[in-house]
Amino acid sequence: MKILVLHGPNLNMLGAREVDKYGTMTLDDINKKLRSIATELKIEIETYQSNNESELVDKIQATIGNFDGIVINPAAFTHTSIAIRDAILAVNMPTVEVHLSNIYSREEFRHHSYIAPVCIGQICGFKEGSYIAGLKTLVSYLQRANKN
Amino acid sequence: MKILVLHGPNLNMLGAREVDKYGTMTLDDINKKLRSIATELKIEIETYQSNNESELVDKIQATIGNFDGIVINPAAFTHTSIAIRDAILAVNMPTVEVHLSNIYSREEFRHHSYIAPVCIGQICGFKEGSYIAGLKTLVSYLQRANKN
Amino acid sequence: MKILVLHGPNLNMLGAREVDKYGTMTLDDINKKLRSIATELKIEIETYQSNNESELVDKIQATIGNFDGIVINPAAFTHTSIAIRDAILAVNMPTVEVHLSNIYSREEFRHHSYIAPVCIGQICGFKEGSYIAGLKTLVSYLQRANKN
Amino acid sequence: MKILVLHGPNLNMLGAREVDKYGTMTLDDINKKLRSIATELKIEIETYQSNNESELVDKIQATIGNFDGIVINPAAFTHTSIAIRDAILAVNMPTVEVHLSNIYSREEFRHHSYIAPVCIGQICGFKEGSYIAGLKTLVSYLQRANKN
Amino acid sequence: MKILVLHGPNLNMLGAREVDKYGTMTLDDINKKLRSIATELKIEIETYQSNNESELVDKIQATIGNFDGIVINPAAFTHTSIAIRDAILAVNMPTVEVHLSNIYSREEFRHHSYIAPVCIGQICGFKEGSYIAGLKTLVSYLQRANKN
Amino acid sequence: MKILVLHGPNLNMLGAREVDKYGTMTLDDINKKLRSIATELKIEIETYQSNNESELVDKIQATIGNFDGIVINPAAFTHTSIAIRDAILAVNMPTVEVHLSNIYSREEFRHHSYIAPVCIGQICGFKEGSYIAGLKTLVSYLQRANKN
Amino acid sequence: MKILVLHGPNLNMLGAREVDKYGTMTLDDINKKLRSIATELKIEIETYQSNNESELVDKIQATIGNFDGIVINPAAFTHTSIAIRDAILAVNMPTVEVHLSNIYSREEFRHHSYIAPVCIGQICGFKEGSYIAGLKTLVSYLQRANKN
Amino acid sequence: MKILVLHGPNLNMLGAREVDKYGTMTLDDINKKLRSIATELKIEIETYQSNNESELVDKIQATIGNFDGIVINPAAFTHTSIAIRDAILAVNMPTVEVHLSNIYSREEFRHHSYIAPVCIGQICGFKEGSYIAGLKTLVSYLQRANKN
Amino acid sequence: MKILVLHGPNLNMLGAREVDKYGTMTLDDINKKLRSIATELKIEIETYQSNNESELVDKIQATIGNFDGIVINPAAFTHTSIAIRDAILAVNMPTVEVHLSNIYSREEFRHHSYIAPVCIGQICGFKEGSYIAGLKTLVSYLQRANKN
Amino acid sequence: MKILVLHGPNLNMLGAREVDKYGTMTLDDINKKLRSIATELKIEIETYQSNNESELVDKIQATIGNFDGIVINPAAFTHTSIAIRDAILAVNMPTVEVHLSNIYSREEFRHHSYIAPVCIGQICGFKEGSYIAGLKTLVSYLQRANKN
Amino acid sequence: MKILVLHGPNLNMLGAREVDKYGTMTLDDINKKLRSIATELKIEIETYQSNNESELVDKIQATIGNFDGIVINPAAFTHTSIAIRDAILAVNMPTVEVHLSNIYSREEFRHHSYIAPVCIGQICGFKEGSYIAGLKTLVSYLQRANKN
Amino acid sequence: MKILVLHGPNLNMLGAREVDKYGTMTLDDINKKLRSIATELKIEIETYQSNNESELVDKIQATIGNFDGIVINPAAFTHTSIAIRDAILAVNMPTVEVHLSNIYSREEFRHHSYIAPVCIGQICGFKEGSYIAGLKTLVSYLQRANKN
Repeated sequence: MKILVLHGPNLNMLGAREVDKYGTMTLDDINKKLRSIATELKIEIETYQSNNESELVDKIQATIGNFDGIVINPAAFTHTSIAIRDAILAVNMPTVEVHLSNIYSREEFRHHSYIAPVCIGQICGFKEGSYIAGLKTLVSYLQRANKN
Repeated sequence: MKILVLHGPNLNMLGAREVDKYGTMTLDDINKKLRSIATELKIEIETYQSNNESELVDKIQATIGNFDGIVINPAAFTHTSIAIRDAILAVNMPTVEVHLSNIYSREEFRHHSYIAPVCIGQICGFKEGSYIAGLKTLVSYLQRANKN
Repeated sequence: MKILVLHGPNLNMLGAREVDKYGTMTLDDINKKLRSIATELKIEIETYQSNNESELVDKIQATIGNFDGIVINPAAFTHTSIAIRDAILAVNMPTVEVHLSNIYSREEFRHHSYIAPVCIGQICGFKEGSYIAGLKTLVSYLQRANKN
Repeated sequence: MKILVLHGPNLNMLGAREVDKYGTMTLDDINKKLRSIATELKIEIETYQSNNESELVDKIQATIGNFDGIVINPAAFTHTSIAIRDAILAVNMPTVEVHLSNIYSREEFRHHSYIAPVCIGQICGFKEGSYIAGLKTLVSYLQRANKN
Repeated sequence: MKILVLHGPNLNMLGAREVDKYGTMTLDDINKKLRSIATELKIEIETYQSNNESELVDKIQATIGNFDGIVINPAAFTHTSIAIRDAILAVNMPTVEVHLSNIYSREEFRHHSYIAPVCIGQICGFKEGSYIAGLKTLVSYLQRANKN
Repeated sequence: MKILVLHGPNLNMLGAREVDKYGTMTLDDINKKLRSIATELKIEIETYQSNNESELVDKIQATIGNFDGIVINPAAFTHTSIAIRDAILAVNMPTVEVHLSNIYSREEFRHHSYIAPVCIGQICGFKEGSYIAGLKTLVSYLQRANKN
Repeated sequence: MKILVLHGPNLNMLGAREVDKYGTMTLDDINKKLRSIATELKIEIETYQSNNESELVDKIQATIGNFDGIVINPAAFTHTSIAIRDAILAVNMPTVEVHLSNIYSREEFRHHSYIAPVCIGQICGFKEGSYIAGLKTLVSYLQRANKN
Repeated sequence: MKILVLHGPNLNMLGAREVDKYGTMTLDDINKKLRSIATELKIEIETYQSNNESELVDKIQATIGNFDGIVINPAAFTHTSIAIRDAILAVNMPTVEVHLSNIYSREEFRHHSYIAPVCIGQICGFKEGSYIAGLKTLVSYLQRANKN
Repeated sequence: MKILVLHGPNLNMLGAREVDKYGTMTLDDINKKLRSIATELKIEIETYQSNNESELVDKIQATIGNFDGIVINPAAFTHTSIAIRDAILAVNMPTVEVHLSNIYSREEFRHHSYIAPVCIGQICGFKEGSYIAGLKTLVSYLQRANKN
Repeated sequence: MKILVLHGPNLNMLGAREVDKYGTMTLDDINKKLRSIATELKIEIETYQSNNESELVDKIQATIGNFDGIVINPAAFTHTSIAIRDAILAVNMPTVEVHLSNIYSREEFRHHSYIAPVCIGQICGFKEGSYIAGLKTLVSYLQRANKN
Repeated sequence: MKILVLHGPNLNMLGAREVDKYGTMTLDDINKKLRSIATELKIEIETYQSNNESELVDKIQATIGNFDGIVINPAAFTHTSIAIRDAILAVNMPTVEVHLSNIYSREEFRHHSYIAPVCIGQICGFKEGSYIAGLKTLVSYLQRANKN
Repeated sequence: MKILVLHGPNLNMLGAREVDKYGTMTLDDINKKLRSIATELKIEIETYQSNNESELVDKIQATIGNFDGIVINPAAFTHTSIAIRDAILAVNMPTVEVHLSNIYSREEFRHHSYIAPVCIGQICGFKEGSYIAGLKTLVSYLQRANKN
């Protein structure tokens, strides 16, 4: 089983600023943490960050035949990118949307996600914990799906 | 560490109907599953279901001095109960909102939550997996908070 | 064939006040009238009034295996209760929504029903006549359904 | 007592298509059924269908002195015709609005009626049963009104 | 100079009912009054009433080469007919919109006119006085235009 | 019979600029024209212009016992002044709202009037002709009212 | 003269938390204060708190014949309960709505009250002072009403 | 194969006015052009224009058994006629919506079509070219459908 | 302690008209009543009425160093004046907003206040009683504030 | 004559998935088809697909001096890209917007196009037929324009 | 070259309070600063502050023949005064709108300006720097315009 | 002191087209002008244009440690890019938003900026003058901040 973990725009800046919202871990810390969990779960993961909508679209398209699922934190693109939504629809890949911060206690425009309706589910507010929970629930979901 | 798990209206009906949205587990199955996870995590949990808004408010009020956190699936009350929101604010107890179904791929009126903005975070769409992830992330959150 | 007739909040006050909107019959008068019609139609009915949303939810849940259909006047809960909507969805019981007054010639907020979309149909404006028509059309509906 | 039964646009197409929403009866079947009920109730009825808004307005205007009440299924005109609303106001004739389908479980634009606020009441969702209930409740209404 | 005076749906019912809103004059009374004013002003008028949107559209189209201007009370079509708006645009004929009642002190949906933006101006609230003022201001407008 | 003609903000600038919307007459020209019509109609008028909302409110209040009716062009205050609306309500004086330009073919925010709902009626689009028609219809209205 | 003082959900939690919004008085303190004022005013009061909408509805219904007026702080139900509004309408009892906090400087959803339009008036923002003012103005209102 | 080409209100006025929006061809020119294309495509067409909504509804209803598809320019009815939408649904006939002008660069109210959602597709902005493309794409669609 | 009592536009007209909404007291009566209460409370008050927004702004600005608090009935300016809101913010003076009528049972546009969010609280619906309660609660507020 | 055919994000995925909406042709199939039509029409075309908004903007900018028109299927960018709209405005190049699916029978957010108002026209719903019609109507448009 | 600098309501209070939003300069400081810049630029300026909308309107009207441009900080009137907008339109004087604070990071109602659409441009957020930049850009604009 | 000047999409097209909105200067002209001003102000600037949202995000992220402030004209991204907003928040760099045209006198969708609320201020409407004023006010702001 192989999972793609996608990080959207500005997540390469994590760990130094706005720690109240996003926590003190750097993106590398989070990726390491996720890899150690992957090892525990006996799965493979690949992590990828981009500030570029089309690179995320390309990555999602390239999951066909190479991955079993996607954990994505679309960050700012959550609220503006129909292209990412359409890419997920096109590859029809089980996807989990995660957010470090609680998007429902922030600005009104962060309450709406173009991505969530085409995902299995959404997890937000637990800082790096959102990724961890996202990865674990996705793996459980895929294991259950494989059994049936 | 002691966690209260609250189930809102109609969740006592789980397992037989609308399995597509909510999964095949009964509420008892979910509670058992959560208890076995609690044992693993070496914490205590109490579970409680009610179709009655005021009983949920009472339970939340009674957590003061007795619990360290709340996992709540407010079900239909998610979208209509300011009283539950105010109860969580009043007890100032770390709370995680969970949903069995992906509320963002259902009717428009299920996209808005009065509860989420006063919680740590929200998890939806993973059927019983939402509860499991909710319990685990809440425990992690409390352990990290206790350390500081 | 057995039908549950549910009356929502404040309908226990009928008959003395606001007769222009609601008519001069008391709730007892209406229940008696419905029972006499039930006798004519050779069906059983049970009537129940509550000012409490959760008691109505409980009653709806308890129809499984005991009733063949529901006539409900959700009164104020029409416009605010997703819990009742979800209960009807959960039991999947043929339901008719009725209102004494014409809700479309009253305040804007009374024009929207959370209940109607999960019912067979809605009848409003005929005072006690709404209940009578609701009971009769529900019985016809069930008889036709039984034939097929 | 004489009642005018008005059928709006496209109702002449009933019986062959979209039977899920509208039932399997043709308009002729419905009219026959209504006439047999009229005989039982010892009243007269006249039925009339038109795809033309102005013909419906003309018919409503012509009820003065000739009819005691109107049962109308305005179909598509429900949501677009202020002219029909104004005609009912002008003749001040007791009117019941009926719909074959449950308009509240269909497209958003079918939830609003220009006609309902100027009627005694509205009945929807019971296929031909909506007409039957509409005719009967109107007759009851008129009999009660005549007594006073 | 020749002016077409158009009366929209239900205006043939004037004089007997809803006199508070519309005044006690019948449509014939209004037409007579307008004809006597036309004589004073030394112009010709033709009056026409229809409950049918397309007949009004036909009449407007037929003004080309035959009339110098239009006084129209579109009644209910004010708020719903883009066809009449487009007809006025197509003939590019100076047009005055009039209303017997003050549409701004009535239901919200009567506050919006599809017709007014393509007219010279709008007059409402003066019962038959709206027509008289409409005719006179139109004639003044045309006389001034002719001079230039 | 004595009528107060009120001109709102910026109407003292008429005649030189924006003649397309407002015509080429100065405010003095309009006042003179209205006075000559008043003489014809054998009534008295007083004209008053102010850029100041409170001065218009004061003038309206002072009509009690001194005037029989008001013709008002509230200009920009049409869309923003509840104080003028309340003044008209307080004096309960028959009032006609006039506008030089057709406010319905201009910016969206000019389509709403706080004043119109408390007036007899509204006239717009006929440049100085709006005032003339306003004065004449008001006088007719008052003469008819005096007769009854 | 006998007044019912009703406290809505979560008001039993007063005095310890969120003192900025709600003040430092417990509900018991407030009730004692109100009773001492009642003694001064030579009237009787009864106080009642519930987290349960239907218990508040029941209490309101039971005022008929037993009370002369109601002071109600509906708390969270202010914004969600049409049932309480309908109960006040049904008993037709002079009612004053009070709030400890200034609901107009809080979240948007707290700006709308279903209750205020059916009350004599509303008082908010003065912490326990809102209750005191509410009780006193209600008593004045009733004394004035009794005189007439 | 036989196609019905329907032209809505005011399209009989084409060619002389508003040529910027609609082009310089008369309706006859367009019909001739379409007939010559039909000959090329070896299909039959019938063309029909009406300013009357109900006549268009009648024509659509009459396509059953007589036509294989419809090209319709509903003109003003695009934005107001649910009756035409329902007629297309009732006959379940492959339909293409066309517009001479680009409705998306005109008034806001012309951006919404009741008809488009029940058509195969929509073509706008190409003057008579919209009809030509509409006819050709419809024929292609039907030929492909016939093959399967 | 010195309090400024401000009366907004049209309140100089009180006592004779619209007594249903505003009561039978003149503004002088109210001012006298408030002065006698001030004497009882051993405070000074100054009262001031203006129909002019800027005079109210000037008065509020001039409270610095001269007054301890403000009772204001902004009347029509409640819903339109950001200048008054900004003046209160600029002087940072404890302010109470009062209304004679229940603004929540009147027109929709009277439900929103620009002033309330920058006040301690709002009192409405008790006719002159609103001023009395406003003055008393403001004095209590200031006495409590002085103690701390 | 040289035409640029632009394909937006995810259109490189055509042919295998979601064939119901988009048809069974791959993007290569469509491009081949368009090239063969270009040959027939004796024009040149260039085709280009990108998931990257800025590459599409660059391509549009580069049409100056090199192309005579653009056929664009902006896909997801239709609803989100003002940059593409501005690029089309900047080059002032005749442009036709095409869509494979009928965007008006899909999600609400797909009904609005930032691109359409700056194009000649829009064609949607005919799968690859939309491109074909788009290319042909654009060529006709340019030929007609060249003649004038 | 002569420029009028207009300051709206409450700007006479600058310098002592709310320095976070508005800076520590008094209005006199700002005016002095602007005069010294005017000297540098070899232009004349006049500065004027008023809390009164009509005085600002009068000043704007009086610029004709006396001034070459206006720098205006309309303060609260930005969001409420159509009269000031119309005055600027009437004098057709090049105008720059300035704000001390960043109105786009404040309350929603401060995001909309009635004035900006009729100005050359808007500058906000730089405290007194907004005025300085406003004056300098206006002078540049006028110099460029004079050259052409 | 070093300032980054960012130009968004399509600004590389300046100078030739749409000169009414954007002026006749090319981007190179503007950059040269800004560099000469930088020399005067004794600061360094770097200028950068991209049609690519992610390149702008990258540039903003790279300002940390290298620049003291940003002048940005986000062009079309003003209204659609939350990623750029989040990048500015992440680097917490003093930023000024500028626009060549007056965005408040253009299409409604250009009135909203995702960027302005996280900037010091916004300047629009002065063509290249907006950049000049933006650069100068930013430098003043930074000099003042450095002093404190």
